[in-house]
Amino acid sequence: MPDTSPIPVYLDCDTGVDDSLALAYLLASPAVDLVGVGTVSGNTSAAQAARNTLDLLDLAGHTRIPVALGSHDHLDHPYDGGAPHVHGENGIGEVDLPRAGAEIDPRTAVQLLIDLSHEYAGRLHVLAIGPMTNIAHALEADPSLPGRIAGVTAMGGAAMVPGNISPVAEANVYNDPQAAAALLAADWDVTLVPLDVTLEHTLSEQQRQQLLADERPFVHALGEIFDQYLDFYLPQYGERLSALHDPLAAVLAAGAFTPTIAPRVPVVVDTGTGPGRGQTIADLRGQRLGPRDHDGIRTRVVLAVDEPVSEHLVATILAA
Amino acid sequence: MPDTSPIPVYLDCDTGVDDSLALAYLLASPAVDLVGVGTVSGNTSAAQAARNTLDLLDLAGHTRIPVALGSHDHLDHPYDGGAPHVHGENGIGEVDLPRAGAEIDPRTAVQLLIDLSHEYAGRLHVLAIGPMTNIAHALEADPSLPGRIAGVTAMGGAAMVPGNISPVAEANVYNDPQAAAALLAADWDVTLVPLDVTLEHTLSEQQRQQLLADERPFVHALGEIFDQYLDFYLPQYGERLSALHDPLAAVLAAGAFTPTIAPRVPVVVDTGTGPGRGQTIADLRGQRLGPRDHDGIRTRVVLAVDEPVSEHLVATILAA
Repeated sequence: MPDTSPIPVYLDCDTGVDDSLALAYLLASPAVDLVGVGTVSGNTSAAQAARNTLDLLDLAGHTRIPVALGSHDHLDHPYDGGAPHVHGENGIGEVDLPRAGAEIDPRTAVQLLIDLSHEYAGRLHVLAIGPMTNIAHALEADPSLPGRIAGVTAMGGAAMVPGNISPVAEANVYNDPQAAAALLAADWDVTLVPLDVTLEHTLSEQQRQQLLADERPFVHALGEIFDQYLDFYLPQYGERLSALHDPLAAVLAAGAFTPTIAPRVPVVVDTGTGPGRGQTIADLRGQRLGPRDHDGIRTRVVLAVDEPVSEHLVATILAA
Repeated sequence: MPDTSPIPVYLDCDTGVDDSLALAYLLASPAVDLVGVGTVSGNTSAAQAARNTLDLLDLAGHTRIPVALGSHDHLDHPYDGGAPHVHGENGIGEVDLPRAGAEIDPRTAVQLLIDLSHEYAGRLHVLAIGPMTNIAHALEADPSLPGRIAGVTAMGGAAMVPGNISPVAEANVYNDPQAAAALLAADWDVTLVPLDVTLEHTLSEQQRQQLLADERPFVHALGEIFDQYLDFYLPQYGERLSALHDPLAAVLAAGAFTPTIAPRVPVVVDTGTGPGRGQTIADLRGQRLGPRDHDGIRTRVVLAVDEPVSEHLVATILAA
């Protein structure tokens, strides 16, 4: 019989507008057991991301999931102040959430991840939707970590499409290229979810209104949090839509859909300081006749997901 | 009245299988007056490219077009031996052409280009279909050169598709990243013709047979020259087709077609030694709603040519 028990997931995030929706999905999905959250600086500071995560979990009635503070600074440079023009000054679109009663976990995010990897040895899935700094530190602190991880899903990179922070670099990877390189070099199964797919799946204004209309304060707040974010994306899409960067990674980590195109290919990160800094260089040569896995490669790059992701996402959250 | 006189073209090439077809097109097109050729190492050595070009021109009955030898080595590294597995040991698919009576021009390619830029001041078009080493040397030797050039068309780079010599780099640019950077940084109008379009336009085996069947030795030889090249491309296309890298650049330089998508955007070249070496980084962010030119940018990147290029190419050569 196939194992249908929920997947224990450690979430590493920089909450974050779209992180909020990913979090909501993970809480709502019966396929997932969210067993811990670590935060990192990215969209906002690691501390603000922890605050936001605690408050969101509290509003959702999930007060026992540990939230641990991770790295404020990145491997080769300090935190740069985040993206307040995208995610708001507080990371969640200037929405004031009620302050949670729960406190931050006394452990670091690295220690939480390592502890969970023992508690759920062989089953724990790592979902990284921010810069991969904590994961890199965990790999350094405990090189045996990959052996206890069932799989890693990471939102990051841009394979065949332009970046969102430079012509070729996506923000999560650009914010810590060395950390992304460490994650991709480790001996575990990685599903990389780049802009190629996350920009193709969108939350509509109508779907945001569905969230807003929900009676539950948590779901209602998600609708509020996305208001400014849809303004930010308006020039790109020509209408009020939000890219589903982190939520798509969460949906794939939950196994809700199988990617249509996701070849296992070598991926290296440009960790230099030239114009390609932070680029995820996926070797997609020779794929003209169809996806082709390279032998011995454990990283698959998701290039297409031909499924109704946003409908599934919203329906799952509304049905929870 | 529009100026319908032929465009004087200086061709800089590394002949080369597909260079041969580009050359044939330039000779055949009534829109072009091929006024000089310089050679550079790339597909083969600069000297072999000059030999091939002289022999092709002689076979075509064009014995008065000057062919000048250009750089054997590149700006930051020596010539690496070319691509005999693609273009054959002699650069033209192992086809033995009759030795031309004409001799190589005593000038360097750089001097020829500079001389032609005075002779055809304001009208000369530069078509670069090899590594851009000669062009970079000419810009250094005479910084006033761009002011006398009507436009530059360069086959090179990969914007949104994988490279052909590394996951992100195309061979012409990879073979001399600094030279490509110099060409793109100069103050002239550049049409960059990258793999994004050159792989989409193909010469079929049937079209090769049309060339082979022609009674003229020059046109027949073109059909022979492409034989091995179609073998090389078989695994990529799944059938005997040849990408039309250099011929497409020639067709666009002749003004035969207007590209469907060709935004003017900043392009920088990764001249470092990391995994992105030789990549042409075109800033294509914000183009989701359609092509958008950046103010003050003189380089357009050709991303789509929705025209029957190969039919036009073959018909022009057969009709000459």
